Amino acid sequence: MVITRTIELSTKGETDIVDITQHVKKALSDSKLNNGTVTIFVPGATGGLTTVEYEPGLVEDLKNAFERIAPRKANYAHNLKWGDGNGFSHVRASMLGPSMSVPFNDGELTLGTWQQIIFVDFDNRPRSRELVLQFVGEK
Amino acid sequence: MVITRTIELSTKGETDIVDITQHVKKALSDSKLNNGTVTIFVPGATGGLTTVEYEPGLVEDLKNAFERIAPRKANYAHNLKWGDGNGFSHVRASMLGPSMSVPFNDGELTLGTWQQIIFVDFDNRPRSRELVLQFVGEK
Amino acid sequence: MVITRTIELSTKGETDIVDITQHVKKALSDSKLNNGTVTIFVPGATGGLTTVEYEPGLVEDLKNAFERIAPRKANYAHNLKWGDGNGFSHVRASMLGPSMSVPFNDGELTLGTWQQIIFVDFDNRPRSRELVLQFVGEK
Repeated sequence: MVITRTIELSTKGETDIVDITQHVKKALSDSKLNNGTVTIFVPGATGGLTTVEYEPGLVEDLKNAFERIAPRKANYAHNLKWGDGNGFSHVRASMLGPSMSVPFNDGELTLGTWQQIIFVDFDNRPRSRELVLQFVGEK
Repeated sequence: MVITRTIELSTKGETDIVDITQHVKKALSDSKLNNGTVTIFVPGATGGLTTVEYEPGLVEDLKNAFERIAPRKANYAHNLKWGDGNGFSHVRASMLGPSMSVPFNDGELTLGTWQQIIFVDFDNRPRSRELVLQFVGEK
Repeated sequence: MVITRTIELSTKGETDIVDITQHVKKALSDSKLNNGTVTIFVPGATGGLTTVEYEPGLVEDLKNAFERIAPRKANYAHNLKWGDGNGFSHVRASMLGPSMSVPFNDGELTLGTWQQIIFVDFDNRPRSRELVLQFVGEK
C-alpha cells in the first residue's frame, strides 16, 4: 500500500534546523501501516534532510559545518546571474540531499533513542514549506 | 508492484553534472504506475545523485564545492596504489551518495518547480553509464 | 511484501569503515525476494552509510575527507555541554546520512563490480551496532 501525507512548516531560513520527528510519527500513526518504509522528500532546491541528536550544541555545530562546505560569503555564479544571494543555500541543499528513507515496524520508526529527523532550510529568507511523506508498506 | 527501468548516459567525466529529470519522468510514464517511490541508483563507485535548480551558475558552484570537499590535486592513497588518478572522484562520489528516492503521485514526481534530478559523474574520463530506476508502487 | 532483517556489528569507532556488502547479500538471499528495494538504516546518530570501492587506499582517503568536513580537533558546542568529546562524530554522521536504498533484481543487488556498501562508525569509541534492513519487494 502507498499512502501520502504532507508536513506544513514555517521556517526562518538561514540554515534553520527543524526537528520534524513528531510530524513523521503522527503521520505514520494516521496511516495505520505497520511495516514498511517512509520516504521523506523536500520538493524544493534549498532544503535538505538528515538525522541528528537534536540539542542546541549540535544544531550550532551543524551550521558551522555547512559554513565550511559552502561559505555564505564565498563567490557564487548563481548570485551573479540571479541576484537573489542564495547560491550558498542551493549548494548546501544539494550536498545534504532532498530525500531520506526511514523503515518502520509495528507502527514505530526504527530511529535510535537519541536520533531525530531534521529538515534544514538553507534559504536566505523565511519560507513556507510542504514536505512529502510517502509511506510504502503493509498493515 | 516493482518495475525496473534503466537510463543510458554518455558523460564527459570531471564532475560532469547531467540533468536526468526528463529520463526519470519518461520512465515513470512508461511504468503506468500512479503512486509510489522511485529509487534511482548509480551502479558504480565514481558517480552520485542529488537535486539542484539546474542552471549554469549553480552547475559551476557545485563543482567548486566538490573541489573544496575533495580537491583534485590533493594526495590520495588510492592514486599511489592504483595509478588511475581518480582518488578525488571516488571520495566525492562516496560523499554525495549513489542513491536517491523520489515519491510520485498521480503519475507525477513530487519535485519542486525549480528542482531537477542530477547525476554527477566524478570520474576523470568520459564514461558510458547505466543508472537503475526501481519503481515501487501501485496503479 | 515487507521483510525486516538486522545486521549486528562490533566496530572500533574513530571513523571505522566497515564493508557490509556480504551481510546485505545474505539477508537478501534469506528474504527469498526477487525484485524490490532494500533500505539500510542506522538507528543512531553517530554512524552513516554510503558505497565505495573498498580498498585500503580509499578507506584512508575517505577518513581524510571527513577530517576536512568536520575536524576532530575543532571546537564543538556539543562537547562543551555534554563532555563526551564526540561532536565531530555527530556532525560527520549527519553529513553522510543514516539511510541508503539499493535496488535488487532476480535476487541480486544492482551494485557495480567495484562498489561495496559501507557502514561508517564515526563515534570516538568502540560500539556494538545493529543496522536495520527493510526489504520492500516481490517474489
